[in-house]
Amino acid sequence: MCRWLAYCGKPVRMDKVLYGPQHSLIEQSLHSQLGAETTNGDGFGIGWYGPDGTPGVFKSMEPAWNDRNLRDLSRHIESPLFIAHIRATSGTPVQQTNCHPFRHGKWLWAHNGVVHDFSAVKRDLVLAVDPSLYPSIEGSTDSEVLFFLALTLGLEDDPPAAVAHVIGLVEEIGHAHGVEFPFQGTIATTDGERLWAFRYSSEGHSRTLYYSSQYDTLREMYPDDERLLDFDEETRIVVSEPLGDLPGVWNEVPEASWGVVQPGQDELHPFRPAVLTHG
Amino acid sequence: MCRWLAYCGKPVRMDKVLYGPQHSLIEQSLHSQLGAETTNGDGFGIGWYGPDGTPGVFKSMEPAWNDRNLRDLSRHIESPLFIAHIRATSGTPVQQTNCHPFRHGKWLWAHNGVVHDFSAVKRDLVLAVDPSLYPSIEGSTDSEVLFFLALTLGLEDDPPAAVAHVIGLVEEIGHAHGVEFPFQGTIATTDGERLWAFRYSSEGHSRTLYYSSQYDTLREMYPDDERLLDFDEETRIVVSEPLGDLPGVWNEVPEASWGVVQPGQDELHPFRPAVLTHG
Amino acid sequence: MCRWLAYCGKPVRMDKVLYGPQHSLIEQSLHSQLGAETTNGDGFGIGWYGPDGTPGVFKSMEPAWNDRNLRDLSRHIESPLFIAHIRATSGTPVQQTNCHPFRHGKWLWAHNGVVHDFSAVKRDLVLAVDPSLYPSIEGSTDSEVLFFLALTLGLEDDPPAAVAHVIGLVEEIGHAHGVEFPFQGTIATTDGERLWAFRYSSEGHSRTLYYSSQYDTLREMYPDDERLLDFDEETRIVVSEPLGDLPGVWNEVPEASWGVVQPGQDELHPFRPAVLTHG
Amino acid sequence: MCRWLAYCGKPVRMDKVLYGPQHSLIEQSLHSQLGAETTNGDGFGIGWYGPDGTPGVFKSMEPAWNDRNLRDLSRHIESPLFIAHIRATSGTPVQQTNCHPFRHGKWLWAHNGVVHDFSAVKRDLVLAVDPSLYPSIEGSTDSEVLFFLALTLGLEDDPPAAVAHVIGLVEEIGHAHGVEFPFQGTIATTDGERLWAFRYSSEGHSRTLYYSSQYDTLREMYPDDERLLDFDEETRIVVSEPLGDLPGVWNEVPEASWGVVQPGQDELHPFRPAVLTHG
Repeated sequence: MCRWLAYCGKPVRMDKVLYGPQHSLIEQSLHSQLGAETTNGDGFGIGWYGPDGTPGVFKSMEPAWNDRNLRDLSRHIESPLFIAHIRATSGTPVQQTNCHPFRHGKWLWAHNGVVHDFSAVKRDLVLAVDPSLYPSIEGSTDSEVLFFLALTLGLEDDPPAAVAHVIGLVEEIGHAHGVEFPFQGTIATTDGERLWAFRYSSEGHSRTLYYSSQYDTLREMYPDDERLLDFDEETRIVVSEPLGDLPGVWNEVPEASWGVVQPGQDELHPFRPAVLTHG
Repeated sequence: MCRWLAYCGKPVRMDKVLYGPQHSLIEQSLHSQLGAETTNGDGFGIGWYGPDGTPGVFKSMEPAWNDRNLRDLSRHIESPLFIAHIRATSGTPVQQTNCHPFRHGKWLWAHNGVVHDFSAVKRDLVLAVDPSLYPSIEGSTDSEVLFFLALTLGLEDDPPAAVAHVIGLVEEIGHAHGVEFPFQGTIATTDGERLWAFRYSSEGHSRTLYYSSQYDTLREMYPDDERLLDFDEETRIVVSEPLGDLPGVWNEVPEASWGVVQPGQDELHPFRPAVLTHG
Repeated sequence: MCRWLAYCGKPVRMDKVLYGPQHSLIEQSLHSQLGAETTNGDGFGIGWYGPDGTPGVFKSMEPAWNDRNLRDLSRHIESPLFIAHIRATSGTPVQQTNCHPFRHGKWLWAHNGVVHDFSAVKRDLVLAVDPSLYPSIEGSTDSEVLFFLALTLGLEDDPPAAVAHVIGLVEEIGHAHGVEFPFQGTIATTDGERLWAFRYSSEGHSRTLYYSSQYDTLREMYPDDERLLDFDEETRIVVSEPLGDLPGVWNEVPEASWGVVQPGQDELHPFRPAVLTHG
Repeated sequence: MCRWLAYCGKPVRMDKVLYGPQHSLIEQSLHSQLGAETTNGDGFGIGWYGPDGTPGVFKSMEPAWNDRNLRDLSRHIESPLFIAHIRATSGTPVQQTNCHPFRHGKWLWAHNGVVHDFSAVKRDLVLAVDPSLYPSIEGSTDSEVLFFLALTLGLEDDPPAAVAHVIGLVEEIGHAHGVEFPFQGTIATTDGERLWAFRYSSEGHSRTLYYSSQYDTLREMYPDDERLLDFDEETRIVVSEPLGDLPGVWNEVPEASWGVVQPGQDELHPFRPAVLTHG
């Protein structure tokens, strides 16, 4: 139950994206406009890719809005791909191991939403995690369990299929425990080259998700905006809540969809949980 | 720029006052109704008097709303007099030494408000602190400097006079630096026996301050409310923002006033800063 | 891999036990004499029983030696039974949910030691936890899993038998994973009335454990020591490492033993893990 | 009362210097060999210069040894000049604003040592800080006051002269307050291009200070050591305590000396506090 931002494109000093815009993500940590919670002060995290291809992660259990380390670090690190996340806990403890994005190898994962009645279904979900991955679960959130389920179910090979299987499993296990609408939320995940985003909820009324318009469109609309110089035609920003009020910048991802930002043509598709078959 | 609560009366488990009421102080840390800031998530503190007469203090730089230690401690500590404070910084760092209430000997001090243009006047104010008290200043807030000025100017002998002199000095020094309205806010201070509260601002439009009605009045209005059993006719709560929606419980302290809660009759008086005279 | 102290007896201000003695537990957080680690700076915790019988818990991820909250709180809280623990992590994250003592209902639990090769056996151990208790596991330590196994295996009815079964299970699962010496350490647990302590290791070379001599013995040895006034004939302190250098105060718990401090006669017995039988 | 390291030379991933060597600085945070304190667990900080010439700073009040953010950040940031510091407080609070290195504009400053009887002389020292700089003092350490005195007394123009004046002033004010040996310690400061280091104490028995041998000497001594590939002939490391046991790597800076690491020839000179003259 949080807010997140994913940037993919021309290498940029991270503070320009995190702090620069009106209604920036960091400002949203204090006063979110659209979120289910208006304050996201239960810790934050940022994961970024650098020259060597493996992501760095910086996390804190303090609110993002006054965090001096985040301000300084983001001002001094340039990256072509990063995910930032601000947290409003739905009950699990405020601690670094519960902050997003989660990392495994070269993969990052962030989630805004909830597995409903998580304490009832947690054990069954965790049991479905590959035993060799199990010891790497460090925190206690639903979001991290979703990540390890995705890794178990093929994230590294086919992210959309893996996430479809994860949510199918969450729905199956949830329904078995009498949870009417087991999954709610948006997900961002990346291997450092491509960025996948998902919007889905069992009840068909999902948390919001937006992506930025193409650079040439923006350039045409705002020929004199100097901030656009930091970006180029390959740059896309995906956010749980729009930054700024400029018309034409943000496009809503439709209900029950997934998309991928990648070199070349980006894609947007309908999303449907995979139904598990039992022989 | 914060919220605070002071309790004086029948010994009570502190969580009953801090968490119990609708719109409790802890709830206000996440969503304040009347505050200049709607989130007070930059740390908190609580100071309480126990059997031996010297106050204990517990402070944290984390938001109060999800702090497990505060919840547990307040559930296990009973006190007849305590002050709790939730902070929204106006710029100074989020750290324990900047959390209220401040303590010196048996005195506690909390403040909601601001010394305007503090960085311009800070040096002059600090110079006016008694040199023997100076090394005890540990943080960097205006509020703590106000406390040490009050100690310098006679807080331990005559709190209303000392605070009048402090604010007179703040206004004099502020005006000398071209600050139009130097002081804004409410103050709570106590020696463990009596509790003084102040409401004043140079511009005549001060942060809010309320005190609870007398117990017998409340008892008459709400004969069946079990929560009132925790209190008695000596019990008073003073708050920067009302708790709960019950009509008749909260009385606004008038603009430019001070009051004292004490054994016997409480008092409420007009407040005027002391004009300093120079020979 | 830590240090702990358990106090049971005449109600006492906790700081007198925690900070008072030479080589006090808090001093040991900075410089332990006997511990496997000489610094125990990865967080701490204290759990205490008050008038209403349920324990309060205060935990922090910061080192104990300079923690101002711990100093203040322990100075203002009096208790007849408490457990304090200072941590040196063997790898799991430094966070409050990994700090001891762990609490469930009226029970507290602290551990100094290690489940060897925990990441290899963790999943099997967690699977053995009662599914209804499983969602209450909040951290990621071996020590907390031991606690929930003990609760699963009858801690509330028969602590020595439950702990014997827990360690039997740890050894069985460890051996199945090729771990030669699965368990090492000392354990303290209490329900607020009695205090059990265990010393055992699979290799027969366990972390140290000591208990204080009876009050009348101490009084005879040190007739003029004013600190003894805080204690009485029912008072016992159990520690992982002796406090102070006074001869005759501390008695080592023998290898492979358990004891109980209780109203009336305390007891000390040999400890043997329960061998699980499979049909 | 701390440990520090300054690196100046070929751009390097910071973790290689901080974590790589035997007896690394991070290892020293847990077990220092030569320090006045054997544990330096009261926070840490790192300041580094990047492509744009202004230093970034990352600070934490937690011990360095288990800090995951420090490990990750240092692994992902490459820098030609940085200062890292691990703290053992001599009494002032553990908080980020008391962590070194301190920063002002493009300058960084770190100190290992103490202004003796600081609480007695603090007010006089702070009064000597330029009033325009005064509001920028954020913490409560002697080390930060030394930095602002140095800025007041010409650090940006002539660091050795400024530091000589600072220590002359500390000694004068200390003596006036009856402090026999007012200053003790080592100092590192840099503008991002040159790195100055100082070793001095009023009693003539100063904290240790070492600098690394020249690269070609090291290369000759250890032709096969791959770690040396990260460095080159311009690279120097200055440390409060040697890293590793390799003979010939570390040279002690003599008592009462200052040195500068710079493009071209480095320098080493005797240090003497400036005697202040009063008309």
